[in-house]
Amino acid sequence: MNASPTDTIYALASATGRAGVAVFRVSGPAAFEGLQRLTGLVGIEPRYAVRASVRDGEEVVDDGLVLAFAAPASFTGEDVVEYQLHGGRAVESAMLRALARMPGYRIAEPGEFSRRAVLNGKMDLTAAEGIADLVDAETGAQRLQARRQSRGALGALYRDWRAQIVRILAYIEALVDFPDEDLPPEVWEEIRRRMDTLESGISTHLDDGGRGERLRDGLRMAIVGPPNAGKSSLLNWLSKRDAAIVSDVAGTTRDVIEVHLDIKGFPVLVADTAGLRESMDSVETEGIRRALAWAESADLVLDLREAGEEGPLDPGDGPERILVATKIDRADHLEAGPRIGISVKTGEGTDRLLSRIGEAASRLMDVGEAPALTRARHREGLTDCLDHLRRAAALAEFEEGEEDVEYGLVAEDLRLAARSLGRVTGAVDIEEILDLVFAEFCIGK
Amino acid sequence: MNASPTDTIYALASATGRAGVAVFRVSGPAAFEGLQRLTGLVGIEPRYAVRASVRDGEEVVDDGLVLAFAAPASFTGEDVVEYQLHGGRAVESAMLRALARMPGYRIAEPGEFSRRAVLNGKMDLTAAEGIADLVDAETGAQRLQARRQSRGALGALYRDWRAQIVRILAYIEALVDFPDEDLPPEVWEEIRRRMDTLESGISTHLDDGGRGERLRDGLRMAIVGPPNAGKSSLLNWLSKRDAAIVSDVAGTTRDVIEVHLDIKGFPVLVADTAGLRESMDSVETEGIRRALAWAESADLVLDLREAGEEGPLDPGDGPERILVATKIDRADHLEAGPRIGISVKTGEGTDRLLSRIGEAASRLMDVGEAPALTRARHREGLTDCLDHLRRAAALAEFEEGEEDVEYGLVAEDLRLAARSLGRVTGAVDIEEILDLVFAEFCIGK
Repeated sequence: MNASPTDTIYALASATGRAGVAVFRVSGPAAFEGLQRLTGLVGIEPRYAVRASVRDGEEVVDDGLVLAFAAPASFTGEDVVEYQLHGGRAVESAMLRALARMPGYRIAEPGEFSRRAVLNGKMDLTAAEGIADLVDAETGAQRLQARRQSRGALGALYRDWRAQIVRILAYIEALVDFPDEDLPPEVWEEIRRRMDTLESGISTHLDDGGRGERLRDGLRMAIVGPPNAGKSSLLNWLSKRDAAIVSDVAGTTRDVIEVHLDIKGFPVLVADTAGLRESMDSVETEGIRRALAWAESADLVLDLREAGEEGPLDPGDGPERILVATKIDRADHLEAGPRIGISVKTGEGTDRLLSRIGEAASRLMDVGEAPALTRARHREGLTDCLDHLRRAAALAEFEEGEEDVEYGLVAEDLRLAARSLGRVTGAVDIEEILDLVFAEFCIGK
Repeated sequence: MNASPTDTIYALASATGRAGVAVFRVSGPAAFEGLQRLTGLVGIEPRYAVRASVRDGEEVVDDGLVLAFAAPASFTGEDVVEYQLHGGRAVESAMLRALARMPGYRIAEPGEFSRRAVLNGKMDLTAAEGIADLVDAETGAQRLQARRQSRGALGALYRDWRAQIVRILAYIEALVDFPDEDLPPEVWEEIRRRMDTLESGISTHLDDGGRGERLRDGLRMAIVGPPNAGKSSLLNWLSKRDAAIVSDVAGTTRDVIEVHLDIKGFPVLVADTAGLRESMDSVETEGIRRALAWAESADLVLDLREAGEEGPLDPGDGPERILVATKIDRADHLEAGPRIGISVKTGEGTDRLLSRIGEAASRLMDVGEAPALTRARHREGLTDCLDHLRRAAALAEFEEGEEDVEYGLVAEDLRLAARSLGRVTGAVDIEEILDLVFAEFCIGK
C-alpha cells in the first residue's frame, strides 16, 4: 500500500444489497470539503444528523442523513463523514460514482479505515484485528472473543508485559552504567523474579491448547466410521436440526463435505469423510489422502458404528473421540454398549450427543473472560518474546558465579523481547506489517 | 396486517452481510425505553450520535453509535432509534435477539416503517412506493424516476387534480343548494371548462405509452432470428461488453435466458429466444409456447440475419424491430443491406447498434422531468377517475337543453372521481389498500 495518507478514502461501509439504508463512509483531509460539494452543507455540527440531498453535479443522487466527525474524535482519527442513503444497486453505484469525482478522493482499500485508526493511535493492531474478527464472527462465542479483542483487552495485556520488560531493562541499564559498584543482591533477585513472572505469564498464555485460534477458526470435527454406519445421516441431521447451519461450503479438499455449524455458540466445522473407506478404487488417491489428512488434523472425531456391530473402540493417539452407536431405533439394536446410542430417525439419544459435542467444544474453545491468543501472528511474536526472555534469564544466571554478567547481552535480549511484543500490538515497525494484517479485511472497515 | 400500531417494531435496515457497519432501526412508543434498557442511555439529545455499548442482559452485544429521533420528527413520525453496530452474522443475530427481548417489541413486517410513515402523514402512498422503487432501482433512469416519486412529485400532481375536482364540486353543491335561481351561464361554462382541462390533463398523463411502468419494470427486448444467425453471440456480447450486466436470472420461462442490462441508464431485460425455431422436436411444446409469448410481449425486437442471407424484413404488427445483419467480418458478408451490419468478433457496427437500442429505450422509457405513472395501481385509479369525470361531463351537458341538470348525479360522479384519485395517494380508504402496497417492500424500510 503506497497510497499517501493524505488521500481521502471512501467506501460503502454497510453490506451491499437491497435495503432501506446504506452507509457510505469517507475519511481524510477532504472529507468536509466533499460534503460541501455534494450537499452544499458547510460547518455542520459534528455528530449531529442532518438531512441532505446528495448531488453529483446537476444530478441528484439521493436524499438521506449526513453525520460529520471532526478529527481526532472519529473512528479513523481523521475528519470523517458518513452518508446514510437508501440501499439498492442504483443508489450505491451513483453514490460511489459521485464520491469518485471528488478531488483527492479514492476508494478505500480493504481494511484501510481501521489501518488509519491504528496509524493515528486510535487503536492498536490487535484491536483492529478484533474488529475484523467481529465482522467475520459467526457464533456468539466468537463474537464475544472478537469484541474483547476489538476493545483492546489483548493489546492491553501485551502492552503491560512490554512495559514490564522495559522496567527490567531500566534496572539493567542502571547496572551497565555503574558496573563496578556492588549492587545489593536484592536487585538481581528482583530482576530475576520479574523475569520469571513474565516468563510464566507468557508461557501460560501461549500454552492455551490453541483455544483462541480454534475459536476464531472453528473446531474441526470429523465423522468417521465404516460404510453404512450412518455418517451422512448424522451430518444431515446435525445440519438441519438442533444445530443452526451457518453455511455450506464446497470443501477445499475434494471428497470432503464441510458444513459450518453453531453448536451452543461455538463454531464447529464438521466434515463427513464418507467415501474414505468405501470406494478405494473409484476415488483418486489424492482425494483419499486429503480426506485422511482432514480426519487426522481434526480436533474432535465422532466415531460411528451401527449399534450391535462390534468393531474396535480404537482410541488411538489422535484427537479426542466421541464414540457413537447409530440406528438404535431398530429392535435388534437396543444395546449401544459403551457408545452413545442415537437414532436420527426417532431423535433418541441425539440430545445427549449434542451435549457431549457441546462439552468438548467448550473444553477445546472456551477462552473464558481472559483475552486469548487468536492468531498465528500473535503466537509467533509471543514465542519470539519468550525465547529472548529465556535467553536473557540464562545469561543473567551467570551473575551468581565467578564471571561478570554480560549486561549488554542480557539487555539486548530483553530489548528484542520487548520488540517482539511491540510487533504484535503495532508499537514498532508498524508499516512493514500493516499490509499483511489489513489485507484480509473487507472494504469499508 | 392486524398488528397494533402501538407495537414497537425493529429490523436490520441495512443489507445483511459482512460489513463494517450494520444499521438497526427501531420505531414505536417503546423505542426510547428500549434504548435505555439496551444501553443505559436516558434522554439523549435527538439526532446526536452517541457512542454506546449495547447489552442483552449480562452479555454485551456490540459497541457502536446510537441516534435517537423524537416523534414526530422522524422517518415514521414515531419515536425512532437507530443503532449503528458492526456488520456480520454474529452481531446481527445477537442484536436481533436482544431487540426481540425488549417488552412490546416485535420484528417489523416488510415495508412496515414506510407504512407507519404514511399512516402518520409523513408521506403519501405514491412517495412510499417511490422509496420501494428507489431501493429496487438498478439503473440511473430508474433511480431518478423513483426519487422524484419518493419525494412526492407524483402525489403532488394527483393531490392537485383532486383539489381541482373538489373545487368543481363546491360550485355544483352551490347549484344544488339554490336550484331555482338562475345562475349566470358563465358559472356552467367555467365548470365545464375546468372539467375539460382536468380530463385532458389526466388522459395525457395516462396516455404515456406505458413509459413509466416500463421504466420501473425494464424494457423487454427479444433477440430473434433463424438458427446460427448469431443470437447467442450477440447476447453474450451485450452482457459482457459495453452494456453493464446487472444480473443473470434463470428465466421464469423455460428455454428463455434473460439478462438484465443497463443500456445508457435504462433497464433492459434482454432474452435470447434461441432454440425456438431450431429444435422444435426436442423442446417441450410448453417451453416453445412460453418463448413465443415472451417475444410477442416484447417492447423491442432485435431481428437478426446473417449478412448476405436474404430473409424477409417482416416488420409485422408487433413491437418495434431493429433489423441487424450479423457476421459482417466475413469477406463475403460485407453487404448489410437495409440492416445494421455488425460483427461481435471485430466490434464493427456494434456502437451503432447500441445507439439504436439506446434511442429506442429512451423513446420507450424516458419520462423526462414530469412525474410519471409507474404502477398498474395508479393507472387503475386514474382510469376510474377519468371515467367518472367523463360521466359527470356528459350529465352536465344536459343543462344546455330543455331538461334540468341532475346536479346530484353530476356531483356523485365527481365525488367518485375524487375518491379514485384519493385511493392512489392514500387520502381515502387507506387501511384497505395498505396491505397490498406494502407487501412488496423489503424488511427494514
